Amino acid sequence: MALLVQKYGGTSVGCPERIERVADKVARFRADGHDVVVVVSAMSGETNRLLDLARSIEPHPQPRELDMLVSTGEQVTTALLSMALHKRQVPARSYNGSQVRILTDTAHTKARIQHIDGHKLRADIDQGRVVVVAGFQGVDPDGNITTLGRGGSDTTAVALAAALSADECQIYTDVDGVYTTDPRIESSARRLEKITFEEMLELASMGSKVLQLRAVEFAGKYAVPLRVLSSFEEGPGTLITMDEDADMEAPTIAGIAFNRDEAKLTVLGVPDTPGVAYEILGPVGEANIEVDVILQNTGEDGHTDFTFTVSRSDLNDARAILEHSVAQLGAKELRVDSKIAKVSVVGVGMRSHANVAARMFKALSEVGVNIQMISTSEIKISVIIEENYLELAVRSLHTAFGLEGDAGVQQ
Amino acid sequence: MALLVQKYGGTSVGCPERIERVADKVARFRADGHDVVVVVSAMSGETNRLLDLARSIEPHPQPRELDMLVSTGEQVTTALLSMALHKRQVPARSYNGSQVRILTDTAHTKARIQHIDGHKLRADIDQGRVVVVAGFQGVDPDGNITTLGRGGSDTTAVALAAALSADECQIYTDVDGVYTTDPRIESSARRLEKITFEEMLELASMGSKVLQLRAVEFAGKYAVPLRVLSSFEEGPGTLITMDEDADMEAPTIAGIAFNRDEAKLTVLGVPDTPGVAYEILGPVGEANIEVDVILQNTGEDGHTDFTFTVSRSDLNDARAILEHSVAQLGAKELRVDSKIAKVSVVGVGMRSHANVAARMFKALSEVGVNIQMISTSEIKISVIIEENYLELAVRSLHTAFGLEGDAGVQQ
Repeated sequence: MALLVQKYGGTSVGCPERIERVADKVARFRADGHDVVVVVSAMSGETNRLLDLARSIEPHPQPRELDMLVSTGEQVTTALLSMALHKRQVPARSYNGSQVRILTDTAHTKARIQHIDGHKLRADIDQGRVVVVAGFQGVDPDGNITTLGRGGSDTTAVALAAALSADECQIYTDVDGVYTTDPRIESSARRLEKITFEEMLELASMGSKVLQLRAVEFAGKYAVPLRVLSSFEEGPGTLITMDEDADMEAPTIAGIAFNRDEAKLTVLGVPDTPGVAYEILGPVGEANIEVDVILQNTGEDGHTDFTFTVSRSDLNDARAILEHSVAQLGAKELRVDSKIAKVSVVGVGMRSHANVAARMFKALSEVGVNIQMISTSEIKISVIIEENYLELAVRSLHTAFGLEGDAGVQQ
Repeated sequence: MALLVQKYGGTSVGCPERIERVADKVARFRADGHDVVVVVSAMSGETNRLLDLARSIEPHPQPRELDMLVSTGEQVTTALLSMALHKRQVPARSYNGSQVRILTDTAHTKARIQHIDGHKLRADIDQGRVVVVAGFQGVDPDGNITTLGRGGSDTTAVALAAALSADECQIYTDVDGVYTTDPRIESSARRLEKITFEEMLELASMGSKVLQLRAVEFAGKYAVPLRVLSSFEEGPGTLITMDEDADMEAPTIAGIAFNRDEAKLTVLGVPDTPGVAYEILGPVGEANIEVDVILQNTGEDGHTDFTFTVSRSDLNDARAILEHSVAQLGAKELRVDSKIAKVSVVGVGMRSHANVAARMFKALSEVGVNIQMISTSEIKISVIIEENYLELAVRSLHTAFGLEGDAGVQQ
């Protein structure tokens, strides 16, 4: 008798047959006595179909119109799933982001949720209805349709779970949980039964495609228990919780994450004066471009080199902004490199184990991987390396930290 | 320097290239100094694609969910047309029915517009923007998305023109105007330069596909000058106005209309008591089924036969309702016939020419067409005939009333 928020991604609702299978699943949870709120993505391929239509007309459409366009994809799925539920005698009602009122800021295509009004949905739930909500979208204070960016449906689900004080937020996807690393790269990777929000946050930020970064942040902030499961197979998935594992002795590293979606920009020969970092990064941040690893080498002649990484999709925008800054700052040169990747070891156990970094760098040097940049947090160490070495680096770290199946310590 | 509301149908926006051509057209009107509000339909095929998706899941989806589903079609077009306008440096902004706030009643899939808030659009127009509005849809008082039924985009356009006091409402379609009859049936049919609202109303109600009935009603009620033009060719189209033609002597008949979308239901042997018509038609009306021609034959034995026509798409629903009524009323039998058609002569001139009916019946009898039912109004005479005789009836009437090109009196 729990209130569950379940999110089904694009592959899980990719065609009418799959939507019917999701309806079966939801109907079973209802038959077990649970209240269910379902968040759905657009049917797989639909968002790209819409974007292709847009680009065939205008290569750089206005973000407001893009949101108006692509938000229809999720709305279609909500209606179809509600129909499939009705067919199973399950009362259901669809809502788009405006109707729920998922209030966001005005940053079209990258909006952030500010407030969710749970009253309408709560009334439906109290009347025994399943509520089907369009993920990924909201509405700004002026009534314009906004989207949360790709993968934002996870965020919608978590935010709804928080707003409705749900007992669990379940993210159904095409993988059956969170793994120590990508099994396509390292076949001995194994599913984790539990992971902390912090670890998941780092894994997500590292490009682990299972969950969207913002969704994990949200879940951690509002202490929403989050579970990743497969839409297609039965299984417990991976539970993401507040508690660090009770068995604090054993675990060191939860997994090896990596991200190919990285590009590096280096401003060479910047006059080394106070405020220079802000002058370089300020305009980048204002353009809503997220900066990841940042490195500043202090030079000897009163000049410095300033390097940072962004998503590859933001590279052209960032370059345009920096070309302006380079001229203004009197810097020597701007260099960009999109053939890089980031590899990280992640684990809350790292806090009490100082030797993780040493072990990581040793493992990489033994297989001849050159480290370009390093970035650390309490529970993560990341390195930027040449993209060609990515698989080699992941495999050697997975072995070095003893993450192989069975032998693993994180069950 | 006029304010024009222009409506482009599904064929006119059927693919990105055609959307670009519409944008060219709108840009030219803007360059000529006009303010333009554009109402668009879904890209041709899109509504059917969505309906097919729905039906593959549930043959009889709930109307609320159907509206949620199909309303996305028009929203997609608004965004794409706005993008195409931006590409031409024309400031533009898309709106769906909820955003404008096109308030309707709650009759999903057949909703009626109750009020349009013109403030947002007016503000955009005042700032020099073209406003692109999703046709065919609105929102009910509870925030549920409603649709006006197929062809409802015309109604949206006229209602917007009324709300904004536009100078003209232009309906762009794949024909270049209103004809004396369907040129596919009678090759000598000719385009009318002008027609009255009343005549157009009768033509539209007779299944002339050029304009939706409700749109013409609305335009007449609010005295919105309405023009039907081709999206693909230049030309003045047909203007629909309040004024009867100044030259009252000549014109008699504007055109010959017909409609194959007719089905007939006959309740045989109903006890002939007061209120029986209401008892038969009341439940039909409550089910939102529109009844067209009604005929009651008083019998001799205290029983009567009651016949009426509905759209073929409503036949099954009407039959189900009547089967119930037949039992309740103690009537003998229910018969249905969907192989009928309606043919009408329409013209304001008819008011002062009593011999129109005689001429019509004579023409039909001369070619051996049997009349099953007759219905008349001030400016129209309709007959229900066997569907097989439709073309023959139309051609003989077109000739009998002298409507052929050149020889015509209605230019």
